[in-house]
Order: sequence, then structure tokens, then C-alpha cells
Amino acid sequence: MSYNLLKGKRGIIFGALNESSIAWKVAERAAAEGAEIVLTNTAVAMRMGEIERLAEACNAPVIAADATNIEELEALIDKSLEHFGGKIDFVLHSVGMSPNVRKSIPYQQLNYTFFDKTLDISALSFHKIMQVLYNKQAMNEWGSIVALSYLAAQRTFVGYGDMADAKALLESVARSFGAIFGKEYKVRVNTISQSPTPTTAGMGVAGMSEMLNFAEAMSPLGNATAEECADYCITLFSDLTRKVTMQNLYHDGGFSSIGLSEEAFNLLSK
Amino acid sequence: MSYNLLKGKRGIIFGALNESSIAWKVAERAAAEGAEIVLTNTAVAMRMGEIERLAEACNAPVIAADATNIEELEALIDKSLEHFGGKIDFVLHSVGMSPNVRKSIPYQQLNYTFFDKTLDISALSFHKIMQVLYNKQAMNEWGSIVALSYLAAQRTFVGYGDMADAKALLESVARSFGAIFGKEYKVRVNTISQSPTPTTAGMGVAGMSEMLNFAEAMSPLGNATAEECADYCITLFSDLTRKVTMQNLYHDGGFSSIGLSEEAFNLLSK
Amino acid sequence: MSYNLLKGKRGIIFGALNESSIAWKVAERAAAEGAEIVLTNTAVAMRMGEIERLAEACNAPVIAADATNIEELEALIDKSLEHFGGKIDFVLHSVGMSPNVRKSIPYQQLNYTFFDKTLDISALSFHKIMQVLYNKQAMNEWGSIVALSYLAAQRTFVGYGDMADAKALLESVARSFGAIFGKEYKVRVNTISQSPTPTTAGMGVAGMSEMLNFAEAMSPLGNATAEECADYCITLFSDLTRKVTMQNLYHDGGFSSIGLSEEAFNLLSK
Amino acid sequence: MSYNLLKGKRGIIFGALNESSIAWKVAERAAAEGAEIVLTNTAVAMRMGEIERLAEACNAPVIAADATNIEELEALIDKSLEHFGGKIDFVLHSVGMSPNVRKSIPYQQLNYTFFDKTLDISALSFHKIMQVLYNKQAMNEWGSIVALSYLAAQRTFVGYGDMADAKALLESVARSFGAIFGKEYKVRVNTISQSPTPTTAGMGVAGMSEMLNFAEAMSPLGNATAEECADYCITLFSDLTRKVTMQNLYHDGGFSSIGLSEEAFNLLSK
Repeated sequence: MSYNLLKGKRGIIFGALNESSIAWKVAERAAAEGAEIVLTNTAVAMRMGEIERLAEACNAPVIAADATNIEELEALIDKSLEHFGGKIDFVLHSVGMSPNVRKSIPYQQLNYTFFDKTLDISALSFHKIMQVLYNKQAMNEWGSIVALSYLAAQRTFVGYGDMADAKALLESVARSFGAIFGKEYKVRVNTISQSPTPTTAGMGVAGMSEMLNFAEAMSPLGNATAEECADYCITLFSDLTRKVTMQNLYHDGGFSSIGLSEEAFNLLSK
Repeated sequence: MSYNLLKGKRGIIFGALNESSIAWKVAERAAAEGAEIVLTNTAVAMRMGEIERLAEACNAPVIAADATNIEELEALIDKSLEHFGGKIDFVLHSVGMSPNVRKSIPYQQLNYTFFDKTLDISALSFHKIMQVLYNKQAMNEWGSIVALSYLAAQRTFVGYGDMADAKALLESVARSFGAIFGKEYKVRVNTISQSPTPTTAGMGVAGMSEMLNFAEAMSPLGNATAEECADYCITLFSDLTRKVTMQNLYHDGGFSSIGLSEEAFNLLSK
Repeated sequence: MSYNLLKGKRGIIFGALNESSIAWKVAERAAAEGAEIVLTNTAVAMRMGEIERLAEACNAPVIAADATNIEELEALIDKSLEHFGGKIDFVLHSVGMSPNVRKSIPYQQLNYTFFDKTLDISALSFHKIMQVLYNKQAMNEWGSIVALSYLAAQRTFVGYGDMADAKALLESVARSFGAIFGKEYKVRVNTISQSPTPTTAGMGVAGMSEMLNFAEAMSPLGNATAEECADYCITLFSDLTRKVTMQNLYHDGGFSSIGLSEEAFNLLSK
Repeated sequence: MSYNLLKGKRGIIFGALNESSIAWKVAERAAAEGAEIVLTNTAVAMRMGEIERLAEACNAPVIAADATNIEELEALIDKSLEHFGGKIDFVLHSVGMSPNVRKSIPYQQLNYTFFDKTLDISALSFHKIMQVLYNKQAMNEWGSIVALSYLAAQRTFVGYGDMADAKALLESVARSFGAIFGKEYKVRVNTISQSPTPTTAGMGVAGMSEMLNFAEAMSPLGNATAEECADYCITLFSDLTRKVTMQNLYHDGGFSSIGLSEEAFNLLSK
């Protein structure tokens, strides 16, 4: 299925690791909608994952870059501009990791070196990418920048730890930079607050499958899948959403607007 | 420009009056995207406006209905189902009116008969439409229902009077019915919180042009136009946003996320 | 326990029915904190309840008034002003009822005459009270008006039906009138979004005890009781919160900020 | 004026610099309400300010501590527990600073070493304080922890730069730690989102006086002063707000709920 919604557009996709990654699905859908893309991830992630297979399928170069490193980001943007032979229309930031969560360090015992890392990888990286794009005047007018977030930025979920804070910071960065990028370059910046999704990263969180079941029971439309998230991203990259900016957009089957569903009520009443 | 995003889909558009109406633009864009549509408005509005011209352009029947009247809504849905030869995929509710605002009655002196009317026309009508659609099982799975709202539902704007309360009620109805329509029929229900727009109804509000200037100065991307709102509606009617439901979606160039912009600051510093 | 926080202040309490009512507890606490109060409820509710007992304990007159009836409200305010020999410092609105919920009519089958009643009793009554207070210039400067609300105004709870919409409308009325009452009379208007509470009205809702259990398991501090709500009201009536206005204040042990707690997680994992 | 609201309670106040500081006013009010307090600030701030004068007036020790340094925080808490001869009932965090804002570095050109500092001083410090309090089991049951925030966490204000992101992070930390501190020790954690306030720190922000005028014109009750903020803090430290937790509480004369006021409208129409 294709609508040619992104025909002639060029975008950079951060964070595709393997087939279960949301970024992977976004890359596939963007390519199917007519976009040229550049894929990027850290050198380590590239070795772990199967990004080369995606690159082939999308006819896209893979350029390694650590999204927390300004020099590597500058090189990435330079190479992308050269590859495209023109400016960039859209960017997806699907990057996040917490050493504290990985090591099951409880939130009340955070290792602060790890906390800095969580914030740097999951939120400051988004600022750094935008700062480099801004300074290099790399975005086309009416371009669109999207980062993936989660409702933990607003509400506390057991086990999500300092990633909750990182997502809150990420969403704030989107607003703060969106005000500037919008005014000066007509570029919009938004975050998508996605359902819990059984990606490789997601499944590493303790209790993830129970969380998926709870969210499924609470959401009138069920959890949003990675494929559906990719579809939604396409609309935000397209020319049909030009005046949506500085928003956090829930893509979650309704979860965020549910206090208690009948199905969850029944689960609890057993 | 067309992407065939609504190819094979059928929708009902409430509230097109004349060329400056958002609903008018939505009808045009929906038709251009391949949808079959039915237009509806009250008999009075139909006489005042130029809806027949739109109907011709969109090759759509016009069926008069008072959106506060269950019998007329039932007839509308019956006729629409018959006209389409099948179920409905999308609905736009662009209906609102306050006799208190029209007559410049201040909010602290509301006429309560008028207040009831404001709520009935602007918010209960949305429930009534959905109740009729629900009872007649008139919506296709993965259908999409959208109503137009305004930020006054969350923040107070001088002169907007009891329409603010009506919009808050409208957005609540969207959530409440969205929970049910989602669970039972996979139908999503959302509201778009649109920039102030110089429609015939909008320009009737005292101080509207100053309001437009203020919003323009505050919004990084400027005010969203009726045409841009139509584009955004198309994405919400399309299959690319299937898991977005029970949301109030700001389409306002960033206004809702701005506390004070440089441009408004400069206006105020003079 | 008393701090004399309301010494010399006069207030009207709407909605005390019996000892389990939040309004009952507020009246007791307000009197204990040194306030003079007037109690009011409908004539019917007064016959059903035990308000006379409360009146004696608080040394307060009971003045019957239907909060949806302007004439009765005018008489109530006139008599209160006379009783107090001066203007009013605080008002509590603890009024709400849905015939649809009472008769277990599902939200997708609302009786619209009942819906009007739900909105009139539960939300428009708040506007009417404030309009009468405003027109009679009955409030002292730095007075405080509070209405009780519930999180259903933002999120959908199974079984709460059209009361959710009424609470959303109530909160909007608080903001809209708060903007005016603040500017002109320095009077603040807020809503408290209270935990589910086992009042007589609350226990009439189907599934209330399961709901209480769920909320208890989700809230880090447990559900807020009626007594605790009364304590909180006292702070909002006192001179220590003069610049808090147009807010919806969650008093819920943290429920509104929880996505999933460990305790609820454990309930679900069984 | 005193109600003895904090009689027998003990608290630590971070961030009093001089008489214009909010923390200074909170310390004075807390002492007046019967609390024993400990004052703390960095060694540098202590030299710049006049905290000794406050200490005398409040009969409170001053213990220097860098709120970003775990060892110094541990020493502070140990000494405080010893000084009090018992556990702590309340804590005020009024700490924030952005080297980027100080040096007028625009948000799109952030120095990331400074950004880390902004976050560490303004937000991570709050986590560190709570982690030390938690590990030392230093808080009494039903204790209360409050940090000062600003609406920039939700909406962008020109000139506020990366402090906006720091405040968003601060509010998230309050929620995340509040969930744990509530469950395990019945301690509540909230942030107050205060009007712009002409403190020494505040007046250092470019355009602060225009911002104060704008906020004053938009807020129905006018800006909240430092003294009024102190009053509000007292209610949150008292036993009357025991079930309020994980909230961001606007103390701003209504600003946060205003879209456009008549007064601001008039300013703009000139």
C-alpha cells in the first residue's frame, strides 16, 4: 500500500536495530511512500542488528553516528546532505536507553553517572541532532522532526525508572526547539507517545509482557503496533500536518484517556 | 494535489455553510482524496449559504438535518446509508453556536435558555450523531469521527463566553463515546483544536481580528488556515491513524505550547 | 484539632446529606476552624438526610434551595447575607446527580432529557450560584469558591456515564467564571478532583467498591477520604492560597499521576 | 499572623539567598508557623547573600551544602537529624540555575557542558536530595517535599532557554520519586508552578520586567508574590494536604488557565 505521501522527500531515521524496531518500520513505510532515506545508528547497534538488510530493502545508505556526539552528528548531516544532493525534509528520533533500568537499579538508588547517560542518550541527543540541523541550515522549509516518547513522561509506571524522566525531558526539548525551528525555518517538531511496543529494547524491561496485557485491556482499540506507529509517522512527515507542532501526540489506542476500562475492571474483579 | 488517501471511503460532513467554512474545505479535500460524501446542515443554514455549489463540485447530495434532533439525524443516517449503499467511514462535526455570544451577553449574565442551546447545538449534537450512528450500526470498522474544537476548552479567552464550556463538553463527549465506539466497533473519535479561523461564524465574535493577530504573533508557524485544517482532517480519516483515539489534537501552529513568543513580547513592549 | 484558619469567615456549604457526605465533613471542619456557615440543600435531600443534626452541631441555619433555580438561589443568598450581617468568604459546591447513571442507562443510549438534567444539576448549578453571587456582589474580596469534581472529566471510567461530561463542564465553568470573578472581585474559583469516595451518592454507582479497590491499589498514598477532602477545602478557603485560581486540583493520593503501580500490577498478574 | 500550622514540625529549606528569595519568605513563614528549620545553600551563595540574618531571625542553623553533591547532602541530612533530634517533616527545594541563560547563549546554540550543569543544579539535585533522605530514612510519615517550578515546563517563554527543560525534568522527578516515597513512607512530593517572581535570580533573566507586566496583565488575580508563595508552601507542609502528591500546582493568579485576557487584549490593541 502506498499513497506517495513522501514523494520527493528526504529523511534521516535514527534507531533502527532489527525488524521489531519502530524505526525499522518507519524506514520501510517512508521508502514505500516515495521518500529517500538515510539510516543511522551507533556502530555498536549496527553490529548487533540487521540494519544492512533494511538498508538494502530501502536502498538507503547507513551512516554510523553516536547521537550524543556532536562531531559524529555533524559528519552524519554533512554526508546526508551530500547523499541527498539537497536539504532534509524529515527526521525520526527513536533513541533511548537507561543503564539504570538495564541493570535493574531501582529509581530510589539511581547511579547518577548512569542517569546522566540515560538523559544524554534518550533526550539530549534530540537537542544535539536539532542543533546540528539548525546550525547547518539542513532542514527544508515545512520539514518535520519527530521523536518517540511514552506516557511515562506524564504518569508513573512501575519499572520504567529514570526513562520516565528522560521522556519528560525529551518532550520538553521538542517544545523548546520547536518554538525556534518553527519561527525561523517553518520546521515542526513533535513527539509521538506510543503504546508499549514489544521491540527488542522494550522487551528488555522487566514485566513488559504484563504491561502489554494491561495496556491492551485498558485501550479501547488495543495497543498500537510498530507498523501502525510507522503509518502515523508518515502522516506527520507529510505535507498534510504542516501546522501541528510542539505537540506530544498519543498513539496508543486510547490508553491515555482511560481511567478504568470494563476489561481491566473484569481482570481486577476476578 | 491528491494521494487517494480516502479512496473507497464514505463520509458525512456536518456544517459547511460557505467557502470560508472549515467543513467546506474538508468536503473538497475529502472528495479530492477519493471519498464519496454526503453534506448536511440545518435547513436555515442551507438557505443562507451556498452549499449547493459545494454539492455540485463534490458530486454529493445535501441532506438537511438539525443536528440536535434525533429524528432528523436518524433520517439523515438512513438516507446516507442508502445513498452510499454501505456503511460510513468518517464523519466531521463542525457545528457550534452560542446565542449568548451572538447577542453579546456577558458570561456573568448568561441567559440559561440560551446556554442550554449553546450546549445542545455545539456539544450534545455530537453525542446525538454518535448515538444514532451507534444504534444503526452505521459505521464501518476502523471508521473515524472528528469534531472541531478550540483551546478555549482549556484556557479562557476574552469574548468567547459560554462557547468555551461547550467546547470542553464536546471534548469530553468525544472521550466518553470514543471509549465505547472504539471497544465495540473499532471506531475512533477525536477532536481537533484548531487555530482561530476567519470563518463567517468566527468573524462574528467581537475582537476576532485582534485575536487572529495575537494568535499569529504567538504561533511559531502562524495560525492554521481552514485549508490546512482540511488537510489534517484527511489524515485523521485515513487508514494511517487507526490507533489515535479519544484525543484532542492541537492544530494551531504551536500556539497551545507557547507561553510568550518573541513577537508577542515585542508587540507588548512597544 | 483547630488552627483558626477560617476565623471571622462566612461560608455557604451546598450538598451535605448525611455523615458520609464530603460537604458534611467540610461543614464540620469549617465550623471547627472558626467559620460561620449556612447549610443548603434541596428540600427533598433535606427530608432524606440528617442535615438538621449537622446544623445543630455547627450552629448553622439550613436554608433550602434548589441549586438549579435562580429564584431560590437569590433567596438563599439574600437570607445568607442577612444571617451573616455581611458578605460571604467561601462557598462549597458539592452537587451532582445523573438520572441516566441512576437508571443504569448506558452512555450510548442516553436519555437526553436526563442528560440535560445531569448537566443542569451537576454543572450549570455552579454557574447559577456564581452568577447570583456576582450580581448581588455577595462575595468579599479574596473570597474562595470550590466545587468537587472527579478525574472522569479527563479520563473515562466504566460506569461513570454522563457524569464524566458533567464534571468536564463543571471544571470549564470554574475556569470561565474564575477569570471574571478574579479580575473584578479578587475571588478565586477552583475545583478539587477528589478520589472516589464512599458517600451515599458514590456507593449508588455500580461497581463502586471495585473502583475503590482499584484506586486504592493505584494510589501511592491510598484514596483520599471525605475527612481529608474537608481538610484540603479548608486550605483553599483560607488566606494562604489567595493566588490559586482557575485550577483543577487533584486530591487523590497520587492516582492521577500513576500509569501502573506495583500493587495494581500484582493484582493483574495473579 | 500565625496559625501554628507547623507546630512541632521540622524542615529543611534549600535556596534562601536574600530577602527577595522565595525560600527566604518560606523560612520566615515556616518559623512563624511554629516549625524548626535548617537553612542550607552552597558556600558561594552563602557568601553572596545575607542568609545569616535570616538564620538569626528564624533561630535556625545554616549548613552549607552543594545540592548536586551526594556527600555534602549526606552530611547535611546527618547534621539536620542530629540538630532536630528526630526526623524531618518537610523540605523545600528552591534551587535552579542555567549557565546558558546567564551567559545569554541562545537555546539553539546550547553549550552542552552548561546544559548538563543546568539539569544537575536545577533538577537532578532534587533527586539527589530525595535519594539521600530515602536512604537515611530521614523523613517522618506524612512528610511533605516541595520544589519550585515554572510554567515554562509546559509552554515556551522567550528567553527562558534550557531552564524550561530543567523544570520539565524537575516535575518528572517529583512524580517518579513521589510514587515511591508515597508508597513506602507516606511522604508526598509536589512542585509549585509559581508566577514569575522578581527574585535576584529571576531579575537576571533578560526581559524579566516585561514578562512580569505581561503575566500581571494576563492573570485575573495578578502575579503571585514570594510572600504568597510562602503562604501556599505552608499549606503543603501542613497536615491539611496529606493526600496531595505527585502534582504540579499552579500558584500564578490564574495565568496558566488564561488564553487571552481583556487587559492583555487591550495592551495588544493599542
